[in-house]
Amino acid sequence: MTSTALAFLSAGFGAGLAVLGAGLGIGKLAAAAMEGSARQPTAAGDIRTSMIIAAALIEGATLFAIVVCLLLGLKA
Amino acid sequence: MTSTALAFLSAGFGAGLAVLGAGLGIGKLAAAAMEGSARQPTAAGDIRTSMIIAAALIEGATLFAIVVCLLLGLKA
Amino acid sequence: MTSTALAFLSAGFGAGLAVLGAGLGIGKLAAAAMEGSARQPTAAGDIRTSMIIAAALIEGATLFAIVVCLLLGLKA
Amino acid sequence: MTSTALAFLSAGFGAGLAVLGAGLGIGKLAAAAMEGSARQPTAAGDIRTSMIIAAALIEGATLFAIVVCLLLGLKA
Amino acid sequence: MTSTALAFLSAGFGAGLAVLGAGLGIGKLAAAAMEGSARQPTAAGDIRTSMIIAAALIEGATLFAIVVCLLLGLKA
Amino acid sequence: MTSTALAFLSAGFGAGLAVLGAGLGIGKLAAAAMEGSARQPTAAGDIRTSMIIAAALIEGATLFAIVVCLLLGLKA
Amino acid sequence: MTSTALAFLSAGFGAGLAVLGAGLGIGKLAAAAMEGSARQPTAAGDIRTSMIIAAALIEGATLFAIVVCLLLGLKA
Amino acid sequence: MTSTALAFLSAGFGAGLAVLGAGLGIGKLAAAAMEGSARQPTAAGDIRTSMIIAAALIEGATLFAIVVCLLLGLKA
Amino acid sequence: MTSTALAFLSAGFGAGLAVLGAGLGIGKLAAAAMEGSARQPTAAGDIRTSMIIAAALIEGATLFAIVVCLLLGLKA
Amino acid sequence: MTSTALAFLSAGFGAGLAVLGAGLGIGKLAAAAMEGSARQPTAAGDIRTSMIIAAALIEGATLFAIVVCLLLGLKA
Amino acid sequence: MTSTALAFLSAGFGAGLAVLGAGLGIGKLAAAAMEGSARQPTAAGDIRTSMIIAAALIEGATLFAIVVCLLLGLKA
Amino acid sequence: MTSTALAFLSAGFGAGLAVLGAGLGIGKLAAAAMEGSARQPTAAGDIRTSMIIAAALIEGATLFAIVVCLLLGLKA
Amino acid sequence: MTSTALAFLSAGFGAGLAVLGAGLGIGKLAAAAMEGSARQPTAAGDIRTSMIIAAALIEGATLFAIVVCLLLGLKA
Amino acid sequence: MTSTALAFLSAGFGAGLAVLGAGLGIGKLAAAAMEGSARQPTAAGDIRTSMIIAAALIEGATLFAIVVCLLLGLKA
Repeated sequence: MTSTALAFLSAGFGAGLAVLGAGLGIGKLAAAAMEGSARQPTAAGDIRTSMIIAAALIEGATLFAIVVCLLLGLKA
Repeated sequence: MTSTALAFLSAGFGAGLAVLGAGLGIGKLAAAAMEGSARQPTAAGDIRTSMIIAAALIEGATLFAIVVCLLLGLKA
Repeated sequence: MTSTALAFLSAGFGAGLAVLGAGLGIGKLAAAAMEGSARQPTAAGDIRTSMIIAAALIEGATLFAIVVCLLLGLKA
Repeated sequence: MTSTALAFLSAGFGAGLAVLGAGLGIGKLAAAAMEGSARQPTAAGDIRTSMIIAAALIEGATLFAIVVCLLLGLKA
Repeated sequence: MTSTALAFLSAGFGAGLAVLGAGLGIGKLAAAAMEGSARQPTAAGDIRTSMIIAAALIEGATLFAIVVCLLLGLKA
Repeated sequence: MTSTALAFLSAGFGAGLAVLGAGLGIGKLAAAAMEGSARQPTAAGDIRTSMIIAAALIEGATLFAIVVCLLLGLKA
Repeated sequence: MTSTALAFLSAGFGAGLAVLGAGLGIGKLAAAAMEGSARQPTAAGDIRTSMIIAAALIEGATLFAIVVCLLLGLKA
Repeated sequence: MTSTALAFLSAGFGAGLAVLGAGLGIGKLAAAAMEGSARQPTAAGDIRTSMIIAAALIEGATLFAIVVCLLLGLKA
Repeated sequence: MTSTALAFLSAGFGAGLAVLGAGLGIGKLAAAAMEGSARQPTAAGDIRTSMIIAAALIEGATLFAIVVCLLLGLKA
Repeated sequence: MTSTALAFLSAGFGAGLAVLGAGLGIGKLAAAAMEGSARQPTAAGDIRTSMIIAAALIEGATLFAIVVCLLLGLKA
Repeated sequence: MTSTALAFLSAGFGAGLAVLGAGLGIGKLAAAAMEGSARQPTAAGDIRTSMIIAAALIEGATLFAIVVCLLLGLKA
Repeated sequence: MTSTALAFLSAGFGAGLAVLGAGLGIGKLAAAAMEGSARQPTAAGDIRTSMIIAAALIEGATLFAIVVCLLLGLKA
Repeated sequence: MTSTALAFLSAGFGAGLAVLGAGLGIGKLAAAAMEGSARQPTAAGDIRTSMIIAAALIEGATLFAIVVCLLLGLKA
Repeated sequence: MTSTALAFLSAGFGAGLAVLGAGLGIGKLAAAAMEGSARQPTAAGDIRTSMIIAAALIEGATLFAIVVCLLLGLKA
């Protein structure tokens, strides 16, 4: 097995795992944000701002990890 | 095992894992959105907007990851 | 093991994982949609629309992933 | 190991995983549908319609995946 | 390892996984159906109809998958 | 490894997995049936009928799968 | 590895998995039966009958699977 | 690897899995029995009888499986 | 790998799994027993008797399994 | 791989698994004991006695299993 | 397998696992932050500050770990 | 693979698993102890004593297991 | 496989696992801290102090473990 | 594979597992401590003392295990 082969192997699995984490995390916080908006409609704008900040933190780490995987996937 | 073989291997599994994450995440937040709409029908439009923003964040990372997998799957 | 062999291997598993994610996700959001309709029958049409939008987002990613798997499964 | 061997291997496992997802998903949404009918018997027809739409979405992806597996299982 | 060997291998595991999914799914929805009948005895007939429809959808996919496994298990 | 060896291997594991699914499923629905009978003793006969129908659906798929495993286990 | 070796391997694991399923299933339904008897002591006889029927269904499949495993374990 | 080696391997793991199942099952039903006795002290004798019947069903299958494992562990 | 080697391997893992099951089971039932004693101090003696019976059933199977493992671990 | 090597391998893993079980079990029952003492301070002595009996049952099986592992780890 | 190959392998998986942890953690705490803001809108600023401190602690460890993975992924 | 190699392998994993069990166990019981102190501040001293007894039981088994692992890790 | 290769392998996975633990732990305690601040705004400062102490304990162990992994990842 | 290689392998994984346990444990108990402080602000000092005792017990075992891993990771 050459080193390129394992780079390809980890590229796909790593991207999959990262999206799994992002999906679970953003799903959970967005669910809470929506329950919050439904319970307190007057605070909906404030909650949406918090939701986007937190989702951006997760999204940032996710995209960083996917870029690491992409670098691995583009090795010749 | 050639490197192409492992690229193919990770393409399928990675796409599967990414969809697993997307399914769990979007499923969870959409469930909360629907419970919210049912509890507070007047806020339904606002909640649906939040739902689509959050789902788009997950969907974006998912499609990015599937494209990485597709690139791996199309190596010759 | 030739590269075609591993392409076949990941085709089946990837499709299975993708359907696992789709099943869990759509199952969860449709469950919430039905509970919502039962609690607020007047909002049933609105909730069903949201349900179909969210389910379509998951279904889209799922079918994209299954098509990636099908491409892997049809390699000669 | 020939490529046909791995095609056979993934056929069985993939079909099994797909049915696992379908079972969990349809089971969850049908459970919610029944609880809803019991709580709101007048909305039972409406809920059953939603249940069949959502179950059909899962069933469609499941059968698509099983057909992919069947194609793998029928390779000579 | 010949290809027949792996066909046999996936036949048993695939059938087991499929029944695992069917058991979990039908178990969950039938549990909800019974709770519903107990809470609303007048709607018991309606709920039982829904239960059989949904269980049939799961049973259908399960038997389809087991037949795929049986085909794999009968390869010579 | 001959093909008979793997047939034997999957026979035992498949039967075990199938019983795992059947146990979880029938356990869950029978638990609900008993809670229902305790809450609504007058509906106990009706609930027991539903319980036996649903348990029979799971039992059927389970026995089908175990027979597939038995066929694999009796290969010479 | 001879075929007898793998038959022995799957005999032990299969029996273990089957008992795992039986334990979880019977444990869950018997727990519900006891909660039911405690809440509704006058229905205790009826609930015990249902408990034994359901436990017998699980026990039957379990013993069938263990016998399959025993057959595998007695191969010479 | 000789066939005796794998018989020994599965003996230990199978016994461990069987006890895992028995522990979870008996633990769950005995927990319910004790909660029941605490809530309804007058029904304690009746509940203890049910507890012992159900525990005996699990114990029986467990010991059957451990004996299968013991037979595997005593092969020469 | 000689057969003694695998006997040693399964001895340790089997004992660990058995204790895992015993710990979970006895932990769960003893937790219920203590909650019961706290809620109904007058029934504490009765509950402790039940607790010891049920724990003895789990302990018996656990020690039986550990002895099987010890036999495997003492093979020369 | 010599048989001593695998004895060492299973010694560490087995001890780890056993402590995992003991930790989960004692943690669960001690948690219940403390909740019980807080709810019913007058029964604290009685509950502590039960806690120590049950913890001793788990501790005994754990130490027995660790001693089996120690025997495996001290093979020359 | 050369050492570079395994470095690539662990780079992708490690980054994926790290994002999985970050997603679960930030998702959970942001969900609580939003529920808190909805319940106590006057404390929203204070809660958002705490959320960002805690999220930064997780994000820091995550980025540290991804950088370790990146170092592994850039080995020649 | 020499026997020392596997001794080293199991030393690290075993210590990790043991700490996993200890962390889960002590975490759970200490959580209950703190909830108890908050609900019944007058019983805090009594609860802390119980907490330390139970934690010591887990800690003892954990340290015993880590010492077994250390012995494995110090083999020459 | 050289020893450097495995050092690289465990560096990435270890760092990932450590962050997984840190994310789950800090996420859980920060979530509780925020719920606490929302319920009792006057105690927010006190709770934030406790949160930072506990988070620092986890962060310390995490960084220690990542440094161990970094040492493994920098072996030549 | 030399013995040093496996020592390196277990060093990273072991440290990761240990931190996983520590994170889950301290996270759980600190969460309870904060909920307790919020519910009973006058007992906050007492609860914080208990929290630090229990966290120190976990932290101690964790650092002991990481030191074992460090010893493995520093073998030449």
